[in-house]
Amino acid sequence: MELAIDRLIEGIARTGNPTALGLDTQLGHLPEGFAGEVRNFEDAAAALKRYNKALVDALCGIVPCAKVQIAYYEMYGVPGMQAFRETIDYAKQKGMVVIADAKRNDIGATAGAYANAYLGSTPLTDGEKEAFPVDFVTVNAYLGIDGVEPFLKASQTRGGGIFVLVKTSNPSGIQLQDLKIGDRTVYEVMGDLVSQWGEASIGANGYSSVGAVVGATYPEQGAALRQRLPHTFFLVPGYGAQGATGKDLRGCFDEKGSGAVVNASRSILTAWRKQPGVDFAQAAYNEALRMRDDIMGGM
Amino acid sequence: MELAIDRLIEGIARTGNPTALGLDTQLGHLPEGFAGEVRNFEDAAAALKRYNKALVDALCGIVPCAKVQIAYYEMYGVPGMQAFRETIDYAKQKGMVVIADAKRNDIGATAGAYANAYLGSTPLTDGEKEAFPVDFVTVNAYLGIDGVEPFLKASQTRGGGIFVLVKTSNPSGIQLQDLKIGDRTVYEVMGDLVSQWGEASIGANGYSSVGAVVGATYPEQGAALRQRLPHTFFLVPGYGAQGATGKDLRGCFDEKGSGAVVNASRSILTAWRKQPGVDFAQAAYNEALRMRDDIMGGM
Repeated sequence: MELAIDRLIEGIARTGNPTALGLDTQLGHLPEGFAGEVRNFEDAAAALKRYNKALVDALCGIVPCAKVQIAYYEMYGVPGMQAFRETIDYAKQKGMVVIADAKRNDIGATAGAYANAYLGSTPLTDGEKEAFPVDFVTVNAYLGIDGVEPFLKASQTRGGGIFVLVKTSNPSGIQLQDLKIGDRTVYEVMGDLVSQWGEASIGANGYSSVGAVVGATYPEQGAALRQRLPHTFFLVPGYGAQGATGKDLRGCFDEKGSGAVVNASRSILTAWRKQPGVDFAQAAYNEALRMRDDIMGGM
Repeated sequence: MELAIDRLIEGIARTGNPTALGLDTQLGHLPEGFAGEVRNFEDAAAALKRYNKALVDALCGIVPCAKVQIAYYEMYGVPGMQAFRETIDYAKQKGMVVIADAKRNDIGATAGAYANAYLGSTPLTDGEKEAFPVDFVTVNAYLGIDGVEPFLKASQTRGGGIFVLVKTSNPSGIQLQDLKIGDRTVYEVMGDLVSQWGEASIGANGYSSVGAVVGATYPEQGAALRQRLPHTFFLVPGYGAQGATGKDLRGCFDEKGSGAVVNASRSILTAWRKQPGVDFAQAAYNEALRMRDDIMGGM
């Protein structure tokens, strides 16, 4: 069985583009008139689905991966969750590797339920079914290995993977993550745990299906983590709207230009705002190419 | 506006019972034949709803609070999320204070989407709607205050609250939480942050709507945290199936017997297994009374 990390690395090689389309779609991102009048969650979900599908259609040939932030779907209730499911299914159908950005976490048995939901399947009295099947899910490991192990176990079913929060892109991530435990920071301790958890799932390309979230907004720390964790692939948020640029990302990649996938959400979802008169999907396509060139130019 | 923490404390006073009914319901918890043949998520969701409603009906007079673990509903896909929504609505309708055990976490804007989903409401082009409205949601604060602030802000709409993971009940929680940052453990650092974040929402009973999750399986640490965080209410998992007993909990309460609500899930959901011939709802009722007496006896 092919590992999720190898599917991701192959997608990046095929497109020459180590980026992810961040589908953090909200009503406020859509061009005026696109959604019409939205009076309930069903209306909202229909508009989000339509927007996401148009972006996936436009970008699936040049962007290998979609990161779908589930918070923005939960916010629209049960219809929102239906839109989430249809979005992940559609992106996979179009050949994209799909990451559910869910940052799920709990103790063993309950982590197992989340793992079933995203990476495995759920037992019924007659057979089993997949709830929200994706290639990767993001995980918060504050609870330690027994909250992570069920994800590793469930990932064996379909060769899925996880990205564990190590160094997040937001300003106050430092409140806990940058404090010192002996001679290591909390995020270095977490990074070392992630590296260890991933040892059993290193794929053909030298990286593990157990990756790390490392924010682009801290370039020096990203570069140091790249050296420290040679088998850990990075999911890198913070590009674009959060302020990081192509050259900030250089250190997150290895000497071959592999080792990381960079997400952009708002800057692509709302690219139409900066390209007056251009269709939203074409504007997103243009911005995705600009982003690719910016990042590849930084190498 | 009444704060969530005061609603919870008043419910505990009314019933004389500082416990929560943990609705971590799964097909495997239901008595044989209850669900019939379950071939899809719709069948599963229907059975879970029926079971939960029967338990809420049986226990709402003696248990003031329901903690609903969302992982077990996500596992059943979109129909599972519908069952989650109907379960929280029904428990509230029956007068219970409802905690969504979701351990959500993200950076600012995205944490805001989760906060809208559970404690606030979601803007539409025409008005706004509530996605999964509860009294409290559990939160993981590995990302620091800008991941927490949106929950505090959204909670102002309806007077909701949060419980932040401080010291979890599982064995490997110690991998990160018990490491030392200077002279404090990681969980003490987190506890001190929680206390500080809660200062603005201390209610009539001296406790804040920003509470902490403190596992019953570490009685000494629980007692030390009780002394350290006098205005922080504790949500205490780990009783029953995870091994903690009434006397282990004493230290989580203050000298007046307040300051904590203890959750039990599996031991109540599957109480029928240890009471042959007794109806499942009656068995759950009996077990809830036994738990109350065990905990009150430890005081």
